[in-house]
Amino acid sequence: MELLKNHRSIRGYLKTEIGNDVLNEILECGIRASNTGNMQLCSVIVTEDPAKKKLLSPYHFNQPMVVNAPVLLTVCLDVNRFYKWCSVNNTRADFQNLLWLLNGCVDATVFAQNICIAAENRGLGICYLGTTLYNAPEIAEVLKLPAGVVPITALTIGYPESVPELTDRLPFEAVVHYEEYSDFSDSRIRALYKDKENLESSKRFVAENGKENLAQVYTEVRYKKEDSDFFSKKLIEFLTVQGFRLE
Amino acid sequence: MELLKNHRSIRGYLKTEIGNDVLNEILECGIRASNTGNMQLCSVIVTEDPAKKKLLSPYHFNQPMVVNAPVLLTVCLDVNRFYKWCSVNNTRADFQNLLWLLNGCVDATVFAQNICIAAENRGLGICYLGTTLYNAPEIAEVLKLPAGVVPITALTIGYPESVPELTDRLPFEAVVHYEEYSDFSDSRIRALYKDKENLESSKRFVAENGKENLAQVYTEVRYKKEDSDFFSKKLIEFLTVQGFRLE
Repeated sequence: MELLKNHRSIRGYLKTEIGNDVLNEILECGIRASNTGNMQLCSVIVTEDPAKKKLLSPYHFNQPMVVNAPVLLTVCLDVNRFYKWCSVNNTRADFQNLLWLLNGCVDATVFAQNICIAAENRGLGICYLGTTLYNAPEIAEVLKLPAGVVPITALTIGYPESVPELTDRLPFEAVVHYEEYSDFSDSRIRALYKDKENLESSKRFVAENGKENLAQVYTEVRYKKEDSDFFSKKLIEFLTVQGFRLE
Repeated sequence: MELLKNHRSIRGYLKTEIGNDVLNEILECGIRASNTGNMQLCSVIVTEDPAKKKLLSPYHFNQPMVVNAPVLLTVCLDVNRFYKWCSVNNTRADFQNLLWLLNGCVDATVFAQNICIAAENRGLGICYLGTTLYNAPEIAEVLKLPAGVVPITALTIGYPESVPELTDRLPFEAVVHYEEYSDFSDSRIRALYKDKENLESSKRFVAENGKENLAQVYTEVRYKKEDSDFFSKKLIEFLTVQGFRLE
């Protein structure tokens, strides 16, 4: 429990190698994860080659941990392997619609999170790379992913250089609803976000970016609508190339 | 590690209550999960009321654990709370495209998997309900989910009645690729699935369903294309109603 409650994303790593025994054990924990119908529509690409990390780095917006972590894992939704199995058995599966894209996204993420917890349990640190969906086509090209295989998330793994402060979370009652969703009035929202807004770090972000408040830092600096639209369109094109029908 | 390696889905539960302290601690582990930009675009609805479980049961295809488990948790992608925060701060977020649907699906699943591991660590058993995406609109209605909130997965939780056998997994090398995706020849696919096909349970499924092989049980009995198309279309309509743009 303490391990789950003390999770920090680790962005700085020691040069210490992970070692094959530990890496294999961690990957094995991913393979044991719950998954839809035990079809295991999931694959992972292990990147340890510095040249490959360098190729992938710009697609993760040059975040330094991509080249500095000893291991980068790209976790993929994979219907290709299952299709090939069907093909040698004179049948055909069709998992390339939105339902299965989301099913597969859930399965790939359960797989990924098992890997994270196993890694942290071995004293390693991890960081999720949300950039994987932003630049899925380029990442797929570098990793030679065939049709039916979609990179969903990636993880950097290694021994932590240092342990950062625990990041804040909203109060329990902002996230947990009982029996029915209890929608938020303006005053309740203000109360739930008050502590977050009053953090020194939040105040610094607001000042540094010349904004009126923290919400505007999110919407006008970090997660701008035009970027979101651009990367979403790119993702849709890529999914279509990989054989998914989204309507 | 042993906990992750020994995961079984638990479908039969004792009547023993979980207790608020344990439930709260488990939910807290979900809240501590990694998530995109620490925006926590995720909510969970706790169902303990037997009447509500009964209402939800048909949408989980009447799987008995939905009414028999002491607690059902529906884990949702939630942009509504963040939007409301933006609104009281004179700004607007737009997270309702495919990119953020998948981002949110990843975040909701990391949250869910933390809950599962915390629960198992406390001696509880869990089962993922993939049916959540199949009947998202009906589940959303019962749980009164507003626009911007999408049920991604659900979990039944309780003390296990018994511990089933560990289910099979494909060999390590079917799932793990090094540096590049290593695509599968027919003979390699046959070798990788051989043990699975030769399980007594697999042979029984083939015989019971009058099929030639296990792959056909999956494609022609369990996961038929017409069902998949039907539920995918329904999901797309629901996502549109909840405000998501998928093109």
